[in-house]
Amino acid sequence: MAGNSFGTIFRITTFGESHGEALGGIIDGCPPGITLDFEAIRHEMQRRRPGQSAIVTQRREADEVQFLSGIFEGKTTGTPIGFTIANSNQKSDDYAHIKDLYRPSHADFVYEKKYGIRDYRGGGRSSARETASRVVAGAIAKQVIPQVKINAFVSSVGDIFIDKPYQQLDFSKTESNAVRCPDEATAAKMEDYIREIRKQGDTVGGTVTCILQHVPVGLGEPVFDKLHAELGKAMLSINAVHGFEYGSGFCGARMKGSEHNDVFNPDGTTKTNLSGGIQGGISNGMDIYFRVAFKPVATIMQPQQTIDNKGNIAEMQGKGRHDPCVVPRAVPIVEAMAAMVLADFYLINKMY
Amino acid sequence: MAGNSFGTIFRITTFGESHGEALGGIIDGCPPGITLDFEAIRHEMQRRRPGQSAIVTQRREADEVQFLSGIFEGKTTGTPIGFTIANSNQKSDDYAHIKDLYRPSHADFVYEKKYGIRDYRGGGRSSARETASRVVAGAIAKQVIPQVKINAFVSSVGDIFIDKPYQQLDFSKTESNAVRCPDEATAAKMEDYIREIRKQGDTVGGTVTCILQHVPVGLGEPVFDKLHAELGKAMLSINAVHGFEYGSGFCGARMKGSEHNDVFNPDGTTKTNLSGGIQGGISNGMDIYFRVAFKPVATIMQPQQTIDNKGNIAEMQGKGRHDPCVVPRAVPIVEAMAAMVLADFYLINKMY
Amino acid sequence: MAGNSFGTIFRITTFGESHGEALGGIIDGCPPGITLDFEAIRHEMQRRRPGQSAIVTQRREADEVQFLSGIFEGKTTGTPIGFTIANSNQKSDDYAHIKDLYRPSHADFVYEKKYGIRDYRGGGRSSARETASRVVAGAIAKQVIPQVKINAFVSSVGDIFIDKPYQQLDFSKTESNAVRCPDEATAAKMEDYIREIRKQGDTVGGTVTCILQHVPVGLGEPVFDKLHAELGKAMLSINAVHGFEYGSGFCGARMKGSEHNDVFNPDGTTKTNLSGGIQGGISNGMDIYFRVAFKPVATIMQPQQTIDNKGNIAEMQGKGRHDPCVVPRAVPIVEAMAAMVLADFYLINKMY
Amino acid sequence: MAGNSFGTIFRITTFGESHGEALGGIIDGCPPGITLDFEAIRHEMQRRRPGQSAIVTQRREADEVQFLSGIFEGKTTGTPIGFTIANSNQKSDDYAHIKDLYRPSHADFVYEKKYGIRDYRGGGRSSARETASRVVAGAIAKQVIPQVKINAFVSSVGDIFIDKPYQQLDFSKTESNAVRCPDEATAAKMEDYIREIRKQGDTVGGTVTCILQHVPVGLGEPVFDKLHAELGKAMLSINAVHGFEYGSGFCGARMKGSEHNDVFNPDGTTKTNLSGGIQGGISNGMDIYFRVAFKPVATIMQPQQTIDNKGNIAEMQGKGRHDPCVVPRAVPIVEAMAAMVLADFYLINKMY
Repeated sequence: MAGNSFGTIFRITTFGESHGEALGGIIDGCPPGITLDFEAIRHEMQRRRPGQSAIVTQRREADEVQFLSGIFEGKTTGTPIGFTIANSNQKSDDYAHIKDLYRPSHADFVYEKKYGIRDYRGGGRSSARETASRVVAGAIAKQVIPQVKINAFVSSVGDIFIDKPYQQLDFSKTESNAVRCPDEATAAKMEDYIREIRKQGDTVGGTVTCILQHVPVGLGEPVFDKLHAELGKAMLSINAVHGFEYGSGFCGARMKGSEHNDVFNPDGTTKTNLSGGIQGGISNGMDIYFRVAFKPVATIMQPQQTIDNKGNIAEMQGKGRHDPCVVPRAVPIVEAMAAMVLADFYLINKMY
Repeated sequence: MAGNSFGTIFRITTFGESHGEALGGIIDGCPPGITLDFEAIRHEMQRRRPGQSAIVTQRREADEVQFLSGIFEGKTTGTPIGFTIANSNQKSDDYAHIKDLYRPSHADFVYEKKYGIRDYRGGGRSSARETASRVVAGAIAKQVIPQVKINAFVSSVGDIFIDKPYQQLDFSKTESNAVRCPDEATAAKMEDYIREIRKQGDTVGGTVTCILQHVPVGLGEPVFDKLHAELGKAMLSINAVHGFEYGSGFCGARMKGSEHNDVFNPDGTTKTNLSGGIQGGISNGMDIYFRVAFKPVATIMQPQQTIDNKGNIAEMQGKGRHDPCVVPRAVPIVEAMAAMVLADFYLINKMY
Repeated sequence: MAGNSFGTIFRITTFGESHGEALGGIIDGCPPGITLDFEAIRHEMQRRRPGQSAIVTQRREADEVQFLSGIFEGKTTGTPIGFTIANSNQKSDDYAHIKDLYRPSHADFVYEKKYGIRDYRGGGRSSARETASRVVAGAIAKQVIPQVKINAFVSSVGDIFIDKPYQQLDFSKTESNAVRCPDEATAAKMEDYIREIRKQGDTVGGTVTCILQHVPVGLGEPVFDKLHAELGKAMLSINAVHGFEYGSGFCGARMKGSEHNDVFNPDGTTKTNLSGGIQGGISNGMDIYFRVAFKPVATIMQPQQTIDNKGNIAEMQGKGRHDPCVVPRAVPIVEAMAAMVLADFYLINKMY
Repeated sequence: MAGNSFGTIFRITTFGESHGEALGGIIDGCPPGITLDFEAIRHEMQRRRPGQSAIVTQRREADEVQFLSGIFEGKTTGTPIGFTIANSNQKSDDYAHIKDLYRPSHADFVYEKKYGIRDYRGGGRSSARETASRVVAGAIAKQVIPQVKINAFVSSVGDIFIDKPYQQLDFSKTESNAVRCPDEATAAKMEDYIREIRKQGDTVGGTVTCILQHVPVGLGEPVFDKLHAELGKAMLSINAVHGFEYGSGFCGARMKGSEHNDVFNPDGTTKTNLSGGIQGGISNGMDIYFRVAFKPVATIMQPQQTIDNKGNIAEMQGKGRHDPCVVPRAVPIVEAMAAMVLADFYLINKMY
């Protein structure tokens, strides 16, 4: 257990550093006979790609997935799906200046202490570039459970929040703006704010909300592997995530039982859904919804004090690409992780 | 994978229903040669026991742990530690009235749908009684990593919050009041509020904050098994938990990178600690702190509408023991889960 | 991973030392809704019990299984089945004389070196008494896959072999003699030989053959978790086993491809079955057969030279119960392990 | 669990079909800081390559390993090592004639039944080509435990056996002949026999013996994950293996305890070693030795009767490359699997 696999039956194992030859992974346990929609996979990869809009620095990364196995004449065969994504940029010298520095709030220091060695180029394994492999697996997971509708979107940037319940949002608009916020008025405010942050050479955090609809009743295992516990772990494993809540979440902690209990309709649905579609760790057929908090990314374009590996104080400043708010880019990653959790539990549940 | 195990090297598997013969578990992977402090285990069990204070209905449950293996002449031997905790109450007739009912916001409905059968007595496997086994394992995990200080406490009940940073709290006072809040003035307010809630036959939620100190640098595995992702899963696996945040948490999502970055001191410590002691999923030696949200428990003493397993509308009302706020009782469980996560990563880290 | 669990979906975890309070285990992943045949479980436990026949020293061990969870009104509920088996004999003083000795070809020496501590009473965790828990799990596994017929029997003791193909044996006679050999003439010879060995205060090895019939096509996972690889691991995990072969086995290594290939009938069955019912690691619907080699047990009633934990040469002699040939008792354990492997793959296969 | 991973801490996951784009794998859990000997990896790959000698049909397969991650400036970093091996031959039409046929004693039939779809080209996933990835992982595993000496060799082909104890063999001669038999006289006989078999268009089986020396005391976990149980599973997972025995093996089943027990020397070594270096599932520091039986491969150059997927009887004949005896080529694969098992237990053992 060295942390590079996720899932029990539908299981992804990933490899790859930011500036190595390639990233990639192996998806084990994908059911056979699925006619893969490669265009859908390409679309998800495109969504994850950095530098797609006016609010961030452009970068050319093709992020083309090369599938190497597990697919025959367009269909999954039940054998492991191996894939790679080439890294176009492998130049070490771009990073020579931070070779001996520990960037603040990055993983440089802890990697050095834990492993005694690190690939300092672009954060190496700790780079968010690793999530490209997750998006591939998630795009396939979505095709394992096509009946489920997965919609994530940016619900806040800094102090700017959507102030509507998700039921009033039109998810078809999420992709129509650079911040992936389905509420157009809020989206405009978020974009303005991010432009301002960018001018300051700073970054800002935000939240992603995700809605899972048409999830079959019965997914999730009780006790340790509750559906929301796995969703929580999945989300917390994404770079920069500092919080997870589902259903009533932290607000629920302020409520009374008489307000919070979801009264049943005769058909087993519930009148309210503060439970967030999960009871006792198992899906109950209602919408599952959760929210994920992303801290602002650590790479800022302002001078910062730091130390080198000898303990000397040094000054550094981010250079190159500046991504003032990664939250919009996290949207497809949140969806990918959710899809993997659901596909895995869906397959496990076939045992019963 | 049916969800009843937790951990990779230090691994607990639990069994037991609320009203079956006994609960228990097996702790596999406990290092040999530890002289167990049985009094400490008993103390933790005592903390978890229901009905200890004036604010809840009393119940007599001995919750004595019987160790069956893995210990020889008071020391762990490296072989699995099997243990049982007898259930004093196994009467089915207390629950005959809810045999065919699905209690609102309980797991009755989903268990029936998932398994086609359920032990309806006291919630069966979905009962929080299962956490007794976790507390045993956690009490032993604490002895695997005695250098680490683990302090959880109730940080809010309903809308009543501690409004101080944890550094200003005296953890030795946590156990001195019924709500396990180390801030005495706040504790008094919480107690009053819970008494009021109890009179209403209602319940209320709250939050537990947990501080982990003296954690060695390097615990946690990058990518999927980040230290905070495992802590999050561990906490979300506790009954009634709806949210988890660590370090800056959801507040961090509102901040700028220039505010959020933790600047290094020459010795590798950081001036601020918004990272919450974890960077890139790996402990950095600073205090780890996180917060867990508990919804109000579903069993209220007020009449509620519900349905039976035929879809008929019925009325029900909780009877018997009334626990208006389980958050104080959750404190030792939060600590137990945290201890297990740390012990597991500590042993895994020995590989490097 | 400390070695006390077996299986992926149908998963047993065991605990317990030879002379501790109790042995037991947890069966996780047993499907819900099975009306358990407790008499069948008792029967299997009875078969495993030491001292049932004239050829071994008698011992009174009740070996009654106490089920603690996972069963409601006689049916499995899908939650973990916890169980214990009390140890009637827990006296340490019976073993005081070997406290500091390393018995030849026992695990005493390696346990001491690995763990730095050991429960020396009766071999502690390394005792074959641990297999009692396996028999419980195996008896339940058989009920998960009732369509499969599992028949193990003693095929050799020392140099005395059954010289017939298994198709000519009447498995209903296996239990009719003390050596569990379905061929009566061979059984008589084996019994005589074991009596002789017993008089010598010696022990003797033997082989168990096991036939699995009506196994569905498609069980087993390709590559690392081949059906015969899991069966092999399962058998090699039984105390005293030194070899495993299936289908043509070691004889197959002397054959030519033109002799060994199994020609298909139009219905997919094969004319011969040197493949032993498994091709590419996956069951093909033909009979699965394998053979397991047991070394003679190390506890003999003759004086032997050994060393103590200081490296001093010492003399020792087994005392107490003398089991000259454990191979007959291994028959139900072989069946139990085979049942667990099949039940696990059967459940995994439901994914496809 | 879909069968494509092996190991707990040092863990390999493989992907790839015989005639897909590429094979490859991910090695997770390799300790950081190892300066990899790439020449040693290349050497192992060279040993596994088909068609190296006069006794088999030549084939040009470069089998060059491309490492994509986990290595920085020649050293392992502790992050997963991803690698690929390109397939030079991906032509489907070579296999069009067997598209609908089930080759006798191949995995075609069971794959079709299990998955409902199969890549029929060259056996797809069931091809022994998959072992190339194992050899890469094994070559790295050897570097994790450089103190251990691993020597496998061909001990029999058909009825031709080495009739000496392994202590009398000079392992430096294993690679000096085409059959990888360190006994030159026996090697010559084996070569002659294989040439004859080849002329007949037939194949023949054989055995590989493997000796592990300087294994530290204490490797292996008791109960289910015994060292020899994992070795057995590892070997049985190699294509065409039908049997495994270690130490006294099947011969031990014919012996008496008084003959079989290994008497200790004062230093903890033993005078004899019928235990095969393992007691109670744990290494005792003596040589570990085991033997693996390979059936003759199913692809013969003679006409054979078979069926197609409609159940029609058909005639077929192998064409293309003819490998009359794969046993010599299996030698590096046996070593690779043994190295992986030892490296994994070595790392697990660091926990104690």
